[in-house]
Amino acid sequence: MPVELNNSLEQRIQSIREEIRLGCEREHSTLFEKHEVVPDLQSEINDKQKIAGSSLSPRDLSSYIEHTLLKAEASPLQIQELCWQAVQFQFATVCVNPRFATLAASVVEDSSVRVCCVVGFPLGASNTAVKAYEADRAIHDGAAEIDMVLPIGYLREKQYQEVYLDIRQVVEVCHDQQTLLKVIVEASELNEDQTIAACMLSMEADADFVKTSTGFGTGGATREDVALMRAVVSETMGVKASGGIRNLTDALEMIQAGANRLGTSSGVHIMKQALGDRVEREVVLEY
Amino acid sequence: MPVELNNSLEQRIQSIREEIRLGCEREHSTLFEKHEVVPDLQSEINDKQKIAGSSLSPRDLSSYIEHTLLKAEASPLQIQELCWQAVQFQFATVCVNPRFATLAASVVEDSSVRVCCVVGFPLGASNTAVKAYEADRAIHDGAAEIDMVLPIGYLREKQYQEVYLDIRQVVEVCHDQQTLLKVIVEASELNEDQTIAACMLSMEADADFVKTSTGFGTGGATREDVALMRAVVSETMGVKASGGIRNLTDALEMIQAGANRLGTSSGVHIMKQALGDRVEREVVLEY
Repeated sequence: MPVELNNSLEQRIQSIREEIRLGCEREHSTLFEKHEVVPDLQSEINDKQKIAGSSLSPRDLSSYIEHTLLKAEASPLQIQELCWQAVQFQFATVCVNPRFATLAASVVEDSSVRVCCVVGFPLGASNTAVKAYEADRAIHDGAAEIDMVLPIGYLREKQYQEVYLDIRQVVEVCHDQQTLLKVIVEASELNEDQTIAACMLSMEADADFVKTSTGFGTGGATREDVALMRAVVSETMGVKASGGIRNLTDALEMIQAGANRLGTSSGVHIMKQALGDRVEREVVLEY
Repeated sequence: MPVELNNSLEQRIQSIREEIRLGCEREHSTLFEKHEVVPDLQSEINDKQKIAGSSLSPRDLSSYIEHTLLKAEASPLQIQELCWQAVQFQFATVCVNPRFATLAASVVEDSSVRVCCVVGFPLGASNTAVKAYEADRAIHDGAAEIDMVLPIGYLREKQYQEVYLDIRQVVEVCHDQQTLLKVIVEASELNEDQTIAACMLSMEADADFVKTSTGFGTGGATREDVALMRAVVSETMGVKASGGIRNLTDALEMIQAGANRLGTSSGVHIMKQALGDRVEREVVLEY
């Protein structure tokens, strides 16, 4: 039988009710304050010296990184911190859920960092019209790149027309507004032929990138996925590796396999490894 | 460096290209054929004899169950099979992603089974307007119940106005169209006070149910979550337990703790256990 309200619970409910009343009156627009950009870090990232064991400079590497926080429980404050890290490290984008597009855009304005929002994420099983609407809203709110998930179950059942039209409709929304569209194929749920078909359908629909993974599936990017996707799309499209890229070795391997972008929540750690003892002070690394 | 196209890959691409061309021409509307309803199963479910160790009959239990398949890779064929199982076992609903609303509604028509669609799922981090639009589309496509995910990060940061308005806007879309609205609070990501606040905000926004979990978070429903949520919402709202309900014991425990609905992908297994040796033939259990 249901637990009865006891006095202690009743008191907590009263106290939370008051908190809700106060919370509804409070202004939340300025939780986060931008810090100063740290000049030393900027000069270290822009130093021409190559990363040990690589032909890339730190700045080359940072331009691959999409600094990513897509967890359900991510708070507005954490998103703002993520965005500010992206500015500090000169990452390509911040990759966030569309609810945070406006907030993210406000933090990265006046920097080279772009806002990337996910759509139909992570299951790819919302309606095409909803994905298109979600993309349109995100662009309106400040997104310059959209990562959509294709309808995986339809692809596996070879309902190619359905998959093509799903991608195509979102492409049209994006390209009408000078926005890049990446198609997440969720390679861990596909066999090789299905991954090839996903790439070809994305290419046919004129998407700009194919992307390996949502990070919420059973697996992340593998070298093999990235190499296969790169071979199929040739040089006509970008390839974004994502999911499970946790350190510098992973990052360089994915680039070696053909990735132009790396979606990762470990961007700061990767850059620390890349900069090596050049950043011992860790001035901006305390977020 | 990127893998070059070799002959073998080039051949596979050609063959998949042809398959895509054929796939785009093929009609996919009738993959699934409804089977006969099995009369024996119907009479066994409707038998008044109680389940061993419970005051519920098999029919009582089946009316709690929301037969659920929300995986990204679920195919249209699997969704249709799920729906047909729900009809056979007289479950309360089938719970599917909105892309499948029309398909699900077509299978369960002429039965008591309702279609339930998830919205803003599973992260709760799409925009309120997108959740409202997604709900509206799902209802138009045949959903009679909507399970939405609240914006978890905002709740944790006590941005209660944001959470309230998010729920309220979807409630309005649903209630304008005689549709039930359940609010998924994702209790595994909340402490007790946050769970209480989520229930109170859902109650305040006039939602019909609170629901424990998406099944994609770090944990599923616990007895404690269900009992707490039941105590907070008293008898004014329903409580749906979901995530990790895998057998008859789990199911009966959740009902005991105060759940009115059980979201589970193990509905058939649970009913087999409930019917015990009454269903040895397993006529319809081979899906």
